[in-house]
Amino acid sequence: MNSTQVVLGIDIGGTNTVFGLVDENGKTYYKREIPTEANLPADLLFLRLFKAFNSDFKNLQHELELVGIGVGAPSANFFTGTIENPSNFNWGRVNVVKIISEYYSLPALVTNDANIAAIGEMVYGTAKGLDNFILITLGTGLGSGIVVNGDVVYGSDGFAGEIGHTIVEENGRHCNCGRKGCLETYVSASGICRTVFELLAVHNDKSILREFSFDSLTSKLIQQSAMSGDKIANLAFEITGEKLGKALANSVAHLSPEAIILFGGLALSGDLLITPVKKHLEENLLSIYKGKVKVMTSSLMESENAALLGAASIIWKELGGGKTLSNSELKTKNANLHQLK
Amino acid sequence: MNSTQVVLGIDIGGTNTVFGLVDENGKTYYKREIPTEANLPADLLFLRLFKAFNSDFKNLQHELELVGIGVGAPSANFFTGTIENPSNFNWGRVNVVKIISEYYSLPALVTNDANIAAIGEMVYGTAKGLDNFILITLGTGLGSGIVVNGDVVYGSDGFAGEIGHTIVEENGRHCNCGRKGCLETYVSASGICRTVFELLAVHNDKSILREFSFDSLTSKLIQQSAMSGDKIANLAFEITGEKLGKALANSVAHLSPEAIILFGGLALSGDLLITPVKKHLEENLLSIYKGKVKVMTSSLMESENAALLGAASIIWKELGGGKTLSNSELKTKNANLHQLK
Repeated sequence: MNSTQVVLGIDIGGTNTVFGLVDENGKTYYKREIPTEANLPADLLFLRLFKAFNSDFKNLQHELELVGIGVGAPSANFFTGTIENPSNFNWGRVNVVKIISEYYSLPALVTNDANIAAIGEMVYGTAKGLDNFILITLGTGLGSGIVVNGDVVYGSDGFAGEIGHTIVEENGRHCNCGRKGCLETYVSASGICRTVFELLAVHNDKSILREFSFDSLTSKLIQQSAMSGDKIANLAFEITGEKLGKALANSVAHLSPEAIILFGGLALSGDLLITPVKKHLEENLLSIYKGKVKVMTSSLMESENAALLGAASIIWKELGGGKTLSNSELKTKNANLHQLK
Repeated sequence: MNSTQVVLGIDIGGTNTVFGLVDENGKTYYKREIPTEANLPADLLFLRLFKAFNSDFKNLQHELELVGIGVGAPSANFFTGTIENPSNFNWGRVNVVKIISEYYSLPALVTNDANIAAIGEMVYGTAKGLDNFILITLGTGLGSGIVVNGDVVYGSDGFAGEIGHTIVEENGRHCNCGRKGCLETYVSASGICRTVFELLAVHNDKSILREFSFDSLTSKLIQQSAMSGDKIANLAFEITGEKLGKALANSVAHLSPEAIILFGGLALSGDLLITPVKKHLEENLLSIYKGKVKVMTSSLMESENAALLGAASIIWKELGGGKTLSNSELKTKNANLHQLK
């Protein structure tokens, strides 16, 4: 009867949805992937998901006790339990927590990918023990999860933490948000591609990147070119790091964090990105902050189950913050979480 | 024996230090001002201050019970209780809380002017009931107090909240901090004077402001000129509001606050400043934040004892957050605060 407590983590992506069971130490007991089919209503995704999960869980429930469900999704709001008009989804505004409650009477929480990564990092990763840090996700766009005093900052409406949409260049590059000059138009997988095209137009240097169309260029190609010594590719990383370092200096002036953690594809470029970020952050910091702010890459990211761990971590964070709880403590916390819903 | 509980608030300024007794409802029972003599050691200020206070308090202590001491000072650190190298003070690094403990065995807390104003606003003013807001002080410089989930954000080292030192213009105006383009070089009493001088150089319009030297121009003169229809003065307010509105749009993208509260001399310009701030904030907000963020002026500021109320409020905030506490609750809280020290 000494079953292991696990959380069902669900990571909803534009193409696929991954779900699985994770204990409070980050051990994954089960993992499965289904197509999201984002053009169809959200109800149908959860219908397929829970049908598959319930069938699989029958073989696991003698040894595992499900204590909660954590969901990571684009445009998700922690306060309301909703996902709101994510781009590339045909969902509109969907109350995910409510849908889940039709299947399970368990604590269920949802938040966006960047906050999930920040919490995952606190519960399982680099940020264990850190109370004040900023996590930056570098994917197609730039997401951010801000942690103050050990908690994610959700702001007044659940939508805080959009550092990717701070404007860093007046009348700068057009952003998908409808404005111009947002940080993510410069610092993201797509941003660095745009920078390469600017550089190819300005410079005469030979570059392997001249062989690619805008549509075929990827940040991975730029990374490979940079590592093989391509000047344009290296310059693109230097410029991207400079933009991010300078923007983060302004974020530090707001929040004075202990660390900034980089997560996602571009962060895997390692020193190519981190070195200029550190340099330009440090150069642009107000003197009282100089030498105090660490810049690190995510350790959660190294796990093949990073997204799953992140999604599960939001429940573990609320239940015990990484500490082992007795069953009675867990029951009390569970009850409170239910009220929170 | 039913004495009223009061906090000794101390506001240390470059020229004068004001101190007085304030109850949890913001009623002031006593107030006195002495010269700071910032060129002499801090110990001497507190020696003079407590000598004066103790002598005065003899006549008050039959009806008032002193429960704590709150200090507002430039470059003060809440965590360490220190004041660190404030400009125009010959103090170096001084542990104010330690000095106070040599006189009184009472909870003592210190923080900087902008945080004091933010807490004062929460306990006594416009921000009562607000959990997420940003307070901006517009004096010679631009200070900021950031409140998240009902608490001031101090960051990892006690030095968070320097929005005045976010860089808004690359290679912009020289700042006293040694860098260039900081927000406070544009948006502050001195910033608007610099803007007027730029405008006088560019435009040909007649202006009463052409009669003043750089050293004699004040933000008050600009305000009076603007109200009497001076074009340059009005343009200077428009530009100042635009800079602040745009910068705050980036702060909102970090924190999603319910409100932004303006405090200090320039904020008294009323619509001259608030109107362009609101306009440019709103225009530059990411769509999810549009129409959500109030811009208001401080109501604390209207009290002639604003600085005193602010200084006292940091103790009342810790003791009871504006709620009336029973004596036993107060004793427990007091004990905890002592441990906090």
